[in-house]
Amino acid sequence: MTALLPEGLRDRLPPYADAAAAIEARVLGAIRAHGYERVDPPLAEFAEALGTRLKAGALHDAVRFVDPVSQRTLAIRPDITAQIARIAATRMGHHPRPVRLSYAGSALKLRASQLSPARETRQIGAELFGLDSVAAAAEIATVAVEAMAAAGVAQPSIDFTLPDLVDALAAGPLPVAPEVLAPLRERLDAKDAGAVAQIAPDYLPLIAAAGPFAPALARLRAFDRDGTLTSRLDALAAIAATLDGRVAMTLDPTERHGFEYQTWLGFSLFGGASAAELGRGGTYMVVHEGGAEEAATGFTLYADRLVGDSPTGERRRLFLPLGTPAEDGARWRGDGWVTVAALEAGDTPEAQLCTHVLAEGAARAL
Amino acid sequence: MTALLPEGLRDRLPPYADAAAAIEARVLGAIRAHGYERVDPPLAEFAEALGTRLKAGALHDAVRFVDPVSQRTLAIRPDITAQIARIAATRMGHHPRPVRLSYAGSALKLRASQLSPARETRQIGAELFGLDSVAAAAEIATVAVEAMAAAGVAQPSIDFTLPDLVDALAAGPLPVAPEVLAPLRERLDAKDAGAVAQIAPDYLPLIAAAGPFAPALARLRAFDRDGTLTSRLDALAAIAATLDGRVAMTLDPTERHGFEYQTWLGFSLFGGASAAELGRGGTYMVVHEGGAEEAATGFTLYADRLVGDSPTGERRRLFLPLGTPAEDGARWRGDGWVTVAALEAGDTPEAQLCTHVLAEGAARAL
Repeated sequence: MTALLPEGLRDRLPPYADAAAAIEARVLGAIRAHGYERVDPPLAEFAEALGTRLKAGALHDAVRFVDPVSQRTLAIRPDITAQIARIAATRMGHHPRPVRLSYAGSALKLRASQLSPARETRQIGAELFGLDSVAAAAEIATVAVEAMAAAGVAQPSIDFTLPDLVDALAAGPLPVAPEVLAPLRERLDAKDAGAVAQIAPDYLPLIAAAGPFAPALARLRAFDRDGTLTSRLDALAAIAATLDGRVAMTLDPTERHGFEYQTWLGFSLFGGASAAELGRGGTYMVVHEGGAEEAATGFTLYADRLVGDSPTGERRRLFLPLGTPAEDGARWRGDGWVTVAALEAGDTPEAQLCTHVLAEGAARAL
Repeated sequence: MTALLPEGLRDRLPPYADAAAAIEARVLGAIRAHGYERVDPPLAEFAEALGTRLKAGALHDAVRFVDPVSQRTLAIRPDITAQIARIAATRMGHHPRPVRLSYAGSALKLRASQLSPARETRQIGAELFGLDSVAAAAEIATVAVEAMAAAGVAQPSIDFTLPDLVDALAAGPLPVAPEVLAPLRERLDAKDAGAVAQIAPDYLPLIAAAGPFAPALARLRAFDRDGTLTSRLDALAAIAATLDGRVAMTLDPTERHGFEYQTWLGFSLFGGASAAELGRGGTYMVVHEGGAEEAATGFTLYADRLVGDSPTGERRRLFLPLGTPAEDGARWRGDGWVTVAALEAGDTPEAQLCTHVLAEGAARAL
């Protein structure tokens, strides 16, 4: 059976693939309009170097192979953002900051997760390097929302989180024993009120401070009696103000899964027909050669989730009957039509999924 | 050194990557306008199945790995056309013919060749399945020429070859011993008149029948005294007639390298700054499950060669000074501008490679 594909890998067929390409082009156009310039790293890199920029364990899920040229192990990228960070830190390390970069490409995983069974993922994203400010985070969140709009996502929403919230509270007004920190974070992420009550009851109000943005933020402000979180909450409020009215906003301050490497801000993007998140983003640190760190903010959209399973879109195809002069076809194409030329007597517009036929110089709808 | 990349793999940086993406979009648009719908096969497939559709030995140069899910060997595609043929023969096997498909994507090789040191190649192409006619070949050649025009290729040219020419002559008027066939083909391909004179002197005139299309075709017609080649030469003449005036044309009837799997027609595409071919195409056979064969015609362009080393292109960036209202930026983006917002007091239009600054409601050139 040469038709069979490995689990988690698939063909994108007509009309899906064209719809996906059109959506990707619109998303990249929206990102580009904000000054983000495209970079395109290779499919494979030295595994060890790539691993230093991936989340812990991610290299384990990458396809690796021995390079006959260098005799070293290479890895197919399981994620593109690590490569963009490498480019910003190395080849574009001396460019004036901030550096704004965009990308679109495929990443491949050796193993899929239960939640996302696809092993090949098409990622589209934007990253801003060299600024750790509310203005930078607000710009990235704005570009993410505009990218969703460009993709035609219905009912877009953004769910904010504060990835280092528990660390900040534990280092300040609500100390916990070091060995409790990890389970506390994990149980808060799971919204397990019973366990949190046992581990560190002071943290219980955080679970209630999740939901629509404004009331959740107000609950967090009330909870933050000594002002430990003030700068974070002011930043969130400022970012939300720039997005106000353009997207539904929620706040889930203890959401942590997948945000382990984010610094003070994380967000998930939702909308359209997909129950799964359409993308995610936040603030993080990039390591330069020599060890210096640089702040960055960015987001990634998962292209296939933007398209959905049944892309709608106009498929306007004009059938050119046998013997149509070449210049006639060129004129219709010049006017934006897709033409399908009959190449033998038996060709029919129906078999070629045409919507129109050229007849007496006009496009007649079928 | 985390900045170092393996030999034959590279980052595409600004402004190259944006220029490459723009050219690719224009090329795909030209292909799409002729009714070719996009398919997008996965990066990896079962190695054995992919191997049956690749040229002999090509699987040897593919990155292969054991799939932990199926425990079978998978291969990263070293070439995309084999996957398009699979889709046409299997998942789209029951669609009415002809089926017109297009694609764009990256292919990865474990080893590069001396001639093309890149191990990752971006391919863009179009394939037409189910017709073995002059009309089909002429359409594909036309689309290839229009794709080069869409890419802005200067001085485009197309070099035709007749891959099964020697086989046809050897089976007809100019028999040679079976063991001589392969060396004869190979020496003709190398234009080694001395060796051809020794092996099979009757074939010598073929070497002279290479060059600008019209005189080369005339020499071939004169050589073809018994009419063995008439249908091929008439077909070539008809294809050339449809392209007349749009592209320089040459004929190299014994060129064979890389066309081993082509049937009666092959062509190479040249132009622009690249000395290497920009792409190639021709007629070939696709095997359906069960063993039935189907004729196909297609071409592939190598995207990086279309771009060249120093892409030119307008980089019009409008700097928005600190405090510019968000709606002002949106208005300029709506008018087609790329805007770059100042995010802190120290930002300058020069550092952000801007060409214009927004001043008193107008875009002032820098």
